[in-house]
Amino acid sequence: MLEAQPFEGVLAPVLTPFNDDLSVAKDLYVAHAKWLLDEGCTGLAPFGTTSEANSLGLDERMEMLELLVSSGIPAKLLMPGTGTCALPDTIRLTKHAVEFGCGGVLLLPPFYYKGVSDDGVFEFVSSVIEEVGSDDLRIYCYHIPPIAKIGYSTELLVRLRDAFPGVVIGTKDSSAEWDNTLATHEALPEFGTFVGSESLLLDNLRAGGVGCITATANVNARAIRALVDGWQGKEAEALNAEICAYRAAVQQYPPIPAMKWLLADNRAEPRWRNVRPPLMPLSDEDGEELKAALHEL
Amino acid sequence: MLEAQPFEGVLAPVLTPFNDDLSVAKDLYVAHAKWLLDEGCTGLAPFGTTSEANSLGLDERMEMLELLVSSGIPAKLLMPGTGTCALPDTIRLTKHAVEFGCGGVLLLPPFYYKGVSDDGVFEFVSSVIEEVGSDDLRIYCYHIPPIAKIGYSTELLVRLRDAFPGVVIGTKDSSAEWDNTLATHEALPEFGTFVGSESLLLDNLRAGGVGCITATANVNARAIRALVDGWQGKEAEALNAEICAYRAAVQQYPPIPAMKWLLADNRAEPRWRNVRPPLMPLSDEDGEELKAALHEL
Repeated sequence: MLEAQPFEGVLAPVLTPFNDDLSVAKDLYVAHAKWLLDEGCTGLAPFGTTSEANSLGLDERMEMLELLVSSGIPAKLLMPGTGTCALPDTIRLTKHAVEFGCGGVLLLPPFYYKGVSDDGVFEFVSSVIEEVGSDDLRIYCYHIPPIAKIGYSTELLVRLRDAFPGVVIGTKDSSAEWDNTLATHEALPEFGTFVGSESLLLDNLRAGGVGCITATANVNARAIRALVDGWQGKEAEALNAEICAYRAAVQQYPPIPAMKWLLADNRAEPRWRNVRPPLMPLSDEDGEELKAALHEL
Repeated sequence: MLEAQPFEGVLAPVLTPFNDDLSVAKDLYVAHAKWLLDEGCTGLAPFGTTSEANSLGLDERMEMLELLVSSGIPAKLLMPGTGTCALPDTIRLTKHAVEFGCGGVLLLPPFYYKGVSDDGVFEFVSSVIEEVGSDDLRIYCYHIPPIAKIGYSTELLVRLRDAFPGVVIGTKDSSAEWDNTLATHEALPEFGTFVGSESLLLDNLRAGGVGCITATANVNARAIRALVDGWQGKEAEALNAEICAYRAAVQQYPPIPAMKWLLADNRAEPRWRNVRPPLMPLSDEDGEELKAALHEL
């Protein structure tokens, strides 16, 4: 592990299970989080895109974090998403995460206004850091332009690291553009750089990155962990091919509903199929098709 | 006014003034809201895009609405924005607005997840209506695809109106595509259809629309109101040309910082220049240039 890097390996953006009334299914949530660690996840990133974080209320997010910690999961293993559109809400969630001892936070940029400048995003992150005002804060910048539309340029990451060394310590690059990840490695070799997909995990580890934070870890953590452990060995390419094929099969469908369908099926727990609008559940037809495709692998 | 249409004319998405510490400048806020009504606004739409609504915390939004009402502004004149990414937060803000007697709410669709289906947005709006559970709820669907990326298709508006007649009663079309507004008029002639710009106001009124909800009403309400009152008279084209020229001048700059600069200058109140990140204030150079351009008109 790079010095001062609290996270490495494979982190799961924990799926959020819902009861039929769309309230959070707390029993399933805690059980799933613990299972993910048992399966080999080296940390958990609750409230990521895959977690339907932006479909959760502010209060719900804080309650769920408290639930994970009170259930015995070490807070140091948690990197909750705390970025929202609004500075006060982002400060509130970030402060809460730090108070609960989380190892870091995954910070979306403010994503409502489009065409904003790097200066504006810099100001936003600066304000969060100043208002949280804690030496324990560790920020991973969450770059996911396909969904957030607003992102962190490499230049902006450098500015933030220079202004807040030891606080802004890493990034999750979900651009799915390897050239962008590579530019980050070149500009910030000591950064904790995660990729947002296991399909780039091997490349990332070879380039000096620390791991991946990937949706599919919710259903395939053990295999992804095997690559984290074996990337320098002779099986690396075979392990890589295996997890890439799995991911590609899941990505044929809307991934959040698809993974929830698989968990519902695997655990005989129909509540796992529930998603919050604007997402919609996967049809059983699509689910069976996906299951068959995964069986073929 | 169309029967059962609580709003018509020109509504201002009220700019939100901030103190130097970026807290809401309550004194300026109330004064500005009252001034807008004095200037001829027929209603106010606090917490629109122009209001930096998505840069405000949930609690702030509710406090600000209470402040407007307690300051003597009739709640019936208020159409606050209440749409957020998350169902629970949207329900909370919408319920609060209804409890305070607001004439309607302006509802952004959930805007984080991209590529969502009309079915998903329909489910979201349905859930809001069911959970708010009030006969007093009146929803205007806020269609602003350039910023929210997620929008309301005409087909979706028809579905919502059919499912919730008397509740989903109108729309603000900020697509800036007249063909889209025209399609709404054709499909929903009895709808309360606002355009999001005074540059389409005359067309909208001629096509049976009810008015406009426009950023520039914050600085040019009197002139826009003149067109609302005179659109059937012989001065209509001249009034239209005047407000279009004014808007075009403002739109040469980022409009929110630009309008705030103008108010700061006009009222000799520097706090009006403040914006919350990720937005950035207008430079004095740009502000002086804009002021000169408006003076030329």
